[in-house]
Amino acid sequence: MQALNTTKRLMSTKQFPLFKSLLYSSHDPADCTQVLKVHSYTPKVGADESILLRTLAFPINPSDINQLQGVYPSVPEKTLDYSTEKPAAIAGNEGVFEVMSVPQGERRLAVGDWVIPLYSNTGTWTNYQTCRDAGTLVKVNGLDLYTAATIAVNGCTAYQLVNDYVQWDPSGNEWIVQNAGTSAVSKIVTQVAQARGVKTLSVIRDRENFAEVAKELEERYGATKVISETQNNDKDFSKDELPVILGPNARVRLALNSVGGKSSGAIARKLERDGTMLTYGGMSRQPVTVPTTLLIFNGLKSLGYWITENTKRNPQSKIDTISALMRMYGDGQLQPPEADIKKIEWDVQKMNDEQLLEAVKNGIQSNGKSVVVLKW
Amino acid sequence: MQALNTTKRLMSTKQFPLFKSLLYSSHDPADCTQVLKVHSYTPKVGADESILLRTLAFPINPSDINQLQGVYPSVPEKTLDYSTEKPAAIAGNEGVFEVMSVPQGERRLAVGDWVIPLYSNTGTWTNYQTCRDAGTLVKVNGLDLYTAATIAVNGCTAYQLVNDYVQWDPSGNEWIVQNAGTSAVSKIVTQVAQARGVKTLSVIRDRENFAEVAKELEERYGATKVISETQNNDKDFSKDELPVILGPNARVRLALNSVGGKSSGAIARKLERDGTMLTYGGMSRQPVTVPTTLLIFNGLKSLGYWITENTKRNPQSKIDTISALMRMYGDGQLQPPEADIKKIEWDVQKMNDEQLLEAVKNGIQSNGKSVVVLKW
Repeated sequence: MQALNTTKRLMSTKQFPLFKSLLYSSHDPADCTQVLKVHSYTPKVGADESILLRTLAFPINPSDINQLQGVYPSVPEKTLDYSTEKPAAIAGNEGVFEVMSVPQGERRLAVGDWVIPLYSNTGTWTNYQTCRDAGTLVKVNGLDLYTAATIAVNGCTAYQLVNDYVQWDPSGNEWIVQNAGTSAVSKIVTQVAQARGVKTLSVIRDRENFAEVAKELEERYGATKVISETQNNDKDFSKDELPVILGPNARVRLALNSVGGKSSGAIARKLERDGTMLTYGGMSRQPVTVPTTLLIFNGLKSLGYWITENTKRNPQSKIDTISALMRMYGDGQLQPPEADIKKIEWDVQKMNDEQLLEAVKNGIQSNGKSVVVLKW
Repeated sequence: MQALNTTKRLMSTKQFPLFKSLLYSSHDPADCTQVLKVHSYTPKVGADESILLRTLAFPINPSDINQLQGVYPSVPEKTLDYSTEKPAAIAGNEGVFEVMSVPQGERRLAVGDWVIPLYSNTGTWTNYQTCRDAGTLVKVNGLDLYTAATIAVNGCTAYQLVNDYVQWDPSGNEWIVQNAGTSAVSKIVTQVAQARGVKTLSVIRDRENFAEVAKELEERYGATKVISETQNNDKDFSKDELPVILGPNARVRLALNSVGGKSSGAIARKLERDGTMLTYGGMSRQPVTVPTTLLIFNGLKSLGYWITENTKRNPQSKIDTISALMRMYGDGQLQPPEADIKKIEWDVQKMNDEQLLEAVKNGIQSNGKSVVVLKW
């Protein structure tokens, strides 16, 4: 087989273009931009047996940054496949690609298809990528660029948080309470819940333009009601005003926590007996804190949620989730995320390595969600 | 039927003795001893249809005190059955009784049987009690007085904590980590676990006689290893010394928390992936605090445990638990709790109401586990 492969490679008529990727060989928790390098190379895998992908866009996610810092529990193996001196990995875990060529006989994908990686650690901060197994790619034809580039993490997270832990009764007055109500995931949560017939109480930080932000979350993103962290932590509010907001026979069945600290305890308090709180982030950098009495006497279940682990255990669940989300985008039930995204252009023809590195570093250091868009 | 019952009562040959109970009609969170009153009465229920019970001993549990304070979520209904001016309830939830008489045809119980109530809120701080349904009593013949008086809460809690949440593999090197290692429940946990082939790491507060206390917990109560809270919170200890203590291929599968605060986070950190932490108490009065990363990346499940709710949902589970514990006491696998108990005597013949009330108040205000023993 080895001999045959070699022969085949020598006989190959296909050739790879020059690859350019953002690689790292080490980690730096203090300043992760220091470990990123732009590197050009020709892949060592055979062009005939590989699917060739051209990158269209990739987000800069917090988990990508945590990987560079060396504080993320899931990391790609570092290899010498990219002809580097030290073993290296391509940064990034999410992105949308266009299929440029497929091996002979590959029926699952066609040239021109838009695809996203099924698994994390694929390496997406690159102009091209290769893939040996079409089963590790998910087609997302028909999505807009920004939705496709971010559906694998934010979209799937929001969808599974809403749908995978509670058997909702859409004829009931059933609620989700969540903090960090302005986050990208939270905005998708409210829309997915609305489509599911589930109401959402979104907690956001106190701010001067509270009314304006609340209005946008309610009118544009389908939050049923937006309250402030001050209200979230106010026992009188919970006793007097909250029941009026929730209405008769309300059941607050699920709490979604991506903040931690006092905020997590306060949303947990709003759950009915035997409710579940799912923690999927920790923006406050405070631990998750819940009153002892909630656990003992109210049957609170405090669990975590991690899309990476869920997908590893059950890859089909992610494929199904993406399909469901694509239908919802197609039906207009979900707003594309473009308005909230800070765009960074990578002009593949014109930008040199220094300019590319600088642009990505700026994306890492800026607040908010950055997506790098490749201009071919 | 009503007429028949009345006739029957008039024809009754049986008569109740004079009942004397510790009752409360109100609550006081600041000083709950103020709401307790000693009251004598003849029950309104018919003596012929009732099982008459004589109290042998009852503990003063934290949950009994919380009920008097009005801060416990499960409370008995207050009634006028005891011929009080205001509706009242008998204090206490646990205790051991001797059967004095049974209605004609009652086969499940015999005079002289020792029994404990299946459910909470039965009212045990009394010299006599009545019962209409033998199915709400569990026979505990053969147990010593102190074990019988405390098996329903501490014993059942410890047994179910160990056995109901993890499918243990006794051939593996499997561990429970728990804080408050000197508590009555923790001491039963270590013995139940030892009998089950499960190892225990018990965390206790730092103290001058640490070595002495640790030795007793290990040698007398079967703890595999006792460590201090300082060690529990020390990351170097967890990295360097703990693996040596646990040994090869160790799996720390269950954490039992009755402290809260930092201690709860520190025992949760010692769990393997997808481990469970059960909270059943909160001695530090701090909320349960766990690192966000444990929930998201380590699959930590943080749940609560409450024997009262478990029994309400599945009464048979408590009956089965008591049977299992009785076998273990019979086999000598469990140490009776007498050594740790502060005894308070209620001399039924000699003590007046003031003396009784004073004795019980002292029990409420003292540290440690008090059991009131009735001298007949």
